[in-house]
Amino acid sequence: MERIIIKDRKKESNNSVAVPTEIVGITKEKIGQRFIIKGRVENIVQTSGPTLFMLFDGTASITAKAFIKAGERAYQEINKTDVMEATVEIREHNNELEAEIHSCKKSLAQDFNQLVLERVNRLAKPENPEFMIKSDILEKLRPKFLNAAFEIKKAIMEKRPIIVRHHADCDGYCAGIALERAILPLVQEHNDERDAWRLYKRAPSKAPFYEYMDVTKDLAFALEDMEKFGLKEPVIILADNGSTHEDVLAIKKLSIYGCKVIVIDHHYPGDVADEKSEVDEFVIAHVNPYLVGGDSNLCAGMLCTEIARFIHKESDNIKFLPGLAGTSDRCKGSEYEQYLKIAEDKGYTLEQLRNTAECVDFEAHYLRFVESRSLVNDLLGRDRDKQKDLIDLLIKDINKRKEQQLIVAKHYCKVEQIGSIKIVEVDAARITNRGDYPAVGKTVGMLHDSFNDKRVITLGLGEDFITIRIGDEINANINKIVEHLQKEKPHTFAEGGGHEHAGTIKFVPAAFSEIVNFTKEEIKKSNN
Amino acid sequence: MERIIIKDRKKESNNSVAVPTEIVGITKEKIGQRFIIKGRVENIVQTSGPTLFMLFDGTASITAKAFIKAGERAYQEINKTDVMEATVEIREHNNELEAEIHSCKKSLAQDFNQLVLERVNRLAKPENPEFMIKSDILEKLRPKFLNAAFEIKKAIMEKRPIIVRHHADCDGYCAGIALERAILPLVQEHNDERDAWRLYKRAPSKAPFYEYMDVTKDLAFALEDMEKFGLKEPVIILADNGSTHEDVLAIKKLSIYGCKVIVIDHHYPGDVADEKSEVDEFVIAHVNPYLVGGDSNLCAGMLCTEIARFIHKESDNIKFLPGLAGTSDRCKGSEYEQYLKIAEDKGYTLEQLRNTAECVDFEAHYLRFVESRSLVNDLLGRDRDKQKDLIDLLIKDINKRKEQQLIVAKHYCKVEQIGSIKIVEVDAARITNRGDYPAVGKTVGMLHDSFNDKRVITLGLGEDFITIRIGDEINANINKIVEHLQKEKPHTFAEGGGHEHAGTIKFVPAAFSEIVNFTKEEIKKSNN
Amino acid sequence: MERIIIKDRKKESNNSVAVPTEIVGITKEKIGQRFIIKGRVENIVQTSGPTLFMLFDGTASITAKAFIKAGERAYQEINKTDVMEATVEIREHNNELEAEIHSCKKSLAQDFNQLVLERVNRLAKPENPEFMIKSDILEKLRPKFLNAAFEIKKAIMEKRPIIVRHHADCDGYCAGIALERAILPLVQEHNDERDAWRLYKRAPSKAPFYEYMDVTKDLAFALEDMEKFGLKEPVIILADNGSTHEDVLAIKKLSIYGCKVIVIDHHYPGDVADEKSEVDEFVIAHVNPYLVGGDSNLCAGMLCTEIARFIHKESDNIKFLPGLAGTSDRCKGSEYEQYLKIAEDKGYTLEQLRNTAECVDFEAHYLRFVESRSLVNDLLGRDRDKQKDLIDLLIKDINKRKEQQLIVAKHYCKVEQIGSIKIVEVDAARITNRGDYPAVGKTVGMLHDSFNDKRVITLGLGEDFITIRIGDEINANINKIVEHLQKEKPHTFAEGGGHEHAGTIKFVPAAFSEIVNFTKEEIKKSNN
Repeated sequence: MERIIIKDRKKESNNSVAVPTEIVGITKEKIGQRFIIKGRVENIVQTSGPTLFMLFDGTASITAKAFIKAGERAYQEINKTDVMEATVEIREHNNELEAEIHSCKKSLAQDFNQLVLERVNRLAKPENPEFMIKSDILEKLRPKFLNAAFEIKKAIMEKRPIIVRHHADCDGYCAGIALERAILPLVQEHNDERDAWRLYKRAPSKAPFYEYMDVTKDLAFALEDMEKFGLKEPVIILADNGSTHEDVLAIKKLSIYGCKVIVIDHHYPGDVADEKSEVDEFVIAHVNPYLVGGDSNLCAGMLCTEIARFIHKESDNIKFLPGLAGTSDRCKGSEYEQYLKIAEDKGYTLEQLRNTAECVDFEAHYLRFVESRSLVNDLLGRDRDKQKDLIDLLIKDINKRKEQQLIVAKHYCKVEQIGSIKIVEVDAARITNRGDYPAVGKTVGMLHDSFNDKRVITLGLGEDFITIRIGDEINANINKIVEHLQKEKPHTFAEGGGHEHAGTIKFVPAAFSEIVNFTKEEIKKSNN
Repeated sequence: MERIIIKDRKKESNNSVAVPTEIVGITKEKIGQRFIIKGRVENIVQTSGPTLFMLFDGTASITAKAFIKAGERAYQEINKTDVMEATVEIREHNNELEAEIHSCKKSLAQDFNQLVLERVNRLAKPENPEFMIKSDILEKLRPKFLNAAFEIKKAIMEKRPIIVRHHADCDGYCAGIALERAILPLVQEHNDERDAWRLYKRAPSKAPFYEYMDVTKDLAFALEDMEKFGLKEPVIILADNGSTHEDVLAIKKLSIYGCKVIVIDHHYPGDVADEKSEVDEFVIAHVNPYLVGGDSNLCAGMLCTEIARFIHKESDNIKFLPGLAGTSDRCKGSEYEQYLKIAEDKGYTLEQLRNTAECVDFEAHYLRFVESRSLVNDLLGRDRDKQKDLIDLLIKDINKRKEQQLIVAKHYCKVEQIGSIKIVEVDAARITNRGDYPAVGKTVGMLHDSFNDKRVITLGLGEDFITIRIGDEINANINKIVEHLQKEKPHTFAEGGGHEHAGTIKFVPAAFSEIVNFTKEEIKKSNN
Repeated sequence: MERIIIKDRKKESNNSVAVPTEIVGITKEKIGQRFIIKGRVENIVQTSGPTLFMLFDGTASITAKAFIKAGERAYQEINKTDVMEATVEIREHNNELEAEIHSCKKSLAQDFNQLVLERVNRLAKPENPEFMIKSDILEKLRPKFLNAAFEIKKAIMEKRPIIVRHHADCDGYCAGIALERAILPLVQEHNDERDAWRLYKRAPSKAPFYEYMDVTKDLAFALEDMEKFGLKEPVIILADNGSTHEDVLAIKKLSIYGCKVIVIDHHYPGDVADEKSEVDEFVIAHVNPYLVGGDSNLCAGMLCTEIARFIHKESDNIKFLPGLAGTSDRCKGSEYEQYLKIAEDKGYTLEQLRNTAECVDFEAHYLRFVESRSLVNDLLGRDRDKQKDLIDLLIKDINKRKEQQLIVAKHYCKVEQIGSIKIVEVDAARITNRGDYPAVGKTVGMLHDSFNDKRVITLGLGEDFITIRIGDEINANINKIVEHLQKEKPHTFAEGGGHEHAGTIKFVPAAFSEIVNFTKEEIKKSNN
């Protein structure tokens, strides 16, 4: 087949003045018709047959195909980031629209890029709604909400794959699902179904940060999709994750590969200056209450539900999520109370929220890293009847299991009175059934709560970790203990932390006794 | 494209009296032709292009496509479970038949549903063959066989995905493969190839029950297939699994999502009343010899081979499977002896069956949860020559490995004489190579057998389990020991059991010594 | 549709003398045209629609399709390995070329098979370049290089899937990537894209040999591809793996299923006779310096880079790989020095090579068994700029992490002076963070190096292993220790080994103290 230069007089004669058709207007109804389109070349894939140019004009993307000879690069003069003006015929190929190039030329980039920018700015402009609640912190975060929502909408328009990575607990799932309920309808609107599965993914992260193992896998699959299907570099949204020092290496790595990262988190991000923290250097958007003087009581589920409304104002069935997330994360304060009220208005009592949170944690435990659009989605009320059935089914078994586990924990724990403080110690890894729910963290929490005493501290011991819960009236800060360990006992390889009164210290097994003694000493010292 | 109302006079004029074509008659040869069809709407999928209606008329299913405007729902008046009568043209799309709707109307459901029921009853009617052997228990189970076979055939007709989950040992594989050799040809007959891979899956389960982790994954994938490909809710067949209390939560969960469960098992199902046990409430078919006064000597491989013959009378190459399964599961009694005779008639000596069983266990060990249609299939004689080659290759290495392992076990075990009983104790987890074959259970069994003494009891100790083998002349019941532990020592979180004289007790590691002592005391007491 | 016997006079009349078209000449440009082709039937797949014959004529392969009736086998007289002569029309189906059979007959096999052989010999003839360096060992290996390269090229021509399995360290990755940069362009040239992903795979192996678990998975997927897509039996290339006794069972298993194995390795293959070792019986090509009197200083990265040049002379961007691999594997000798010089000419300083090796090990650690065509590919210089960026990013974090780990190791190690030898002992499994980099082997190596003393021996102890590093001036051989253990203490189940002065002994945990004492005694004895 020869490259055919079309001599369509009517069009050609006006070529210099013809206004190219906006790509967004090229829909399935236009199959068989001929257009002039103009777009920036965002990717070029040489197949064993034709050459594929991915064109973007600020309104939408399309694949334009040119064929000279099997496997031979067409239009060698046109490179990535160039602007191409082409006469094309619209065809369908494997259920996707494709523009077959009849003739084309390189165009000046500067003016066109300006136009693309304007179009993107216009079309990806986020909603700017009232927040669901009154909150000074949220108002201070508004510019950051607008920026994050803009970047997400832009990614959808550019047909960039979106990967939502969220913490695998109830708050993380609320955050991820809230975003999904705003993003997925827009992705589906802009693409055909197959693309909707390819261009949007959500995956839970077991660790409370973006592990190097996870980024390695995400990147491996993203790069494969880029090579196989000509997709663009993805945008990764880290929800209930991503703000801390431990996330930096993973995020830096993404940036080298041209991926973009958006962080929506409520974990302590380290020192803040000028509303920025360490991770800001490597991300295109960062929403975190600590950046504007807030704290973790505005949890990720709350933040992401609000952002969902900036992305897609009709996002449905998300208004109870902040109340649920806050209940699950034991949030306090006016914001939580307002969200709780909203959830109640939507028909969820506090007890129902607690049961739902418990069930989500339970499912998350067994799902691990499996992405399931449906399972937790149903628990989170996609179908309200199924939600009720599921929770009724699960909660009895979960509660029974938890009661049994508490009997075990209470039997094996040791209690030591030190001054006015009670230290509860339990061999956490040796009193739980490997793999079963509830796991160590939950069990230690339950044991701690069972004392119902603000002067109790509970230590759940494992070979290479201590999970700690500290009563409200005790003066201690787990993050500080870790800091001191790192300074004074570097040979223990101590890491971790969490919140001031709830967290986990990790270390090498050889340091076990040393770490336990050090921890107890620190607590004694600060409570004398 | 407009929705076109066809004015085909010849057909239209007779419309009220025209008998719709049975869907089963619409084959590839009919592409391009026009028909009136009538079907119950079993699923509706709105794509970004047309709306898809899955129609079922009791003879077969077809996808009917209607298009108004990209992404717009066609025929909004027609909902799931409605009956639709449509004039369609048959087309091919991605290698699958599709009915393009030209015009359609809603029909009265009642009469049609009656017709569908009659057709299904007629077409899904199982074979009702003589059993391969004489057995009162089997005869008593006949109505349950007929019911299970009917439900499986119906699922195939309805294009419902079928998932066979079987225990990952030789008996479980025999059971799964026997079913597969009956089901898969029918699925292939009713569908094109791609569907045959989508509509039938088989997966081994490591645990001897349907773990919550497994059901979570199965459900996640099934729900994804439903959303992605418009498939129906699957039917899950649990083979050599599914009858016990530990299966109930997983099965209940499936039912909430509209999945159907069929259990074919020979494990003790707890109390039986009116030929029903606990699990019957949640399943559509349950075949288990205990329900009619039998016991585990009619093993799953036997039951499933017989059921295979109720499903598809021409099922080939399955007649030696009961003998193999029984040999592997150490079955006793007349049924086993008759099946063994049949296997011998098919050319399998007892030694060959033993070697085959050993090889299947070996492969199963390394396959873990990977579904492989071919590997174990070949060991189980799909290709008799390859089977022979494989067994010849493997058995030498397996036997060598087992001999080596036995040397290790004998070296490290301790023998204690208590009255007339010998207790053999071995630190089972510390004398096996992690991950390699033979694993703990097999090793403890080999050690026990090596004493060849009916007054020996062998305890394989691990951090959180004891694997137990009890000689024939010893009076003890592992299930009772577990019951007593649960009652008297709830803090040990004891679980498990198995057969009376072979099984495993699991517990939290902290309870290790207490459990070992308790177990020994129980055995001493009942043998004084 | 009927099977149509074509009466195209011009062609038919000359049929007996017509020279069939070579399949290699049938390209996309030929769609719609009619040809006579002749080929050996390499596979027959009966679909629910047509029957598919995979034809190979020594120049290329094509799928020929015949249709009688849905699901019915066409041309029953033609079987696998028969030769078929057919009049076909070229069509496109799902983006792949397909030959629709209009008429066909069986041909005499003998002459044609001779022709196929000649064509294959001609077309798959490898390049025969000068080696990159002067080396007697390489020259002695030349016939083995030619044979391996021939078999690989033949596999590509025959459309046989190729699986490269390489050790998951830097040498293994260099080996795998060097092969990939020669093989993949040829696969892409002979096939369309989709095939290129289906017909070529590369996967790292965690163990230093082909584990039974790995072969089980590879085979399960290969057999599925054969059934699903009608692919042929694959060729497996084991790189930096495959020569030892531990590989034999896995390789034997492949051969039963008709898979072919090529080994390119530098591990000690056991006794050599007539340039062959134990594994030769089961493989179609084996390249290993030990076979011709060389040793492991010609590492796998070197061997595979040279072979790449025999396969595809234009292989690009591979010349620095031998220097990198040798640096990573601590090779010595003239060959390494020459390769190092070449890498320097390509712009890589020794320090850059060391950093690159470190980064590859780091990535390999986190990739585990995930195949990623892109990630390590970039580290290995596919895109030189990205390579630089990546290494700059990673090396700082890696070095910091290693420094921290060394502090831990030095703190917990014990040093014992025995005569003139220092024994350094460290509880290796208890001083590393589970899952994090650097893992045990690396840590023990670092600790050993930190003493910088040729009279030091370092023992990294774990529950079921000892990792050993022995100083240059110490007289000891790890492989001999393992041999002695196996003979004198079979109950320990001792296995493993490695190089003389660096390796790992594995055993059952119960044997721990016995093994440690035995090992120390052996070393003392040989250094008195």
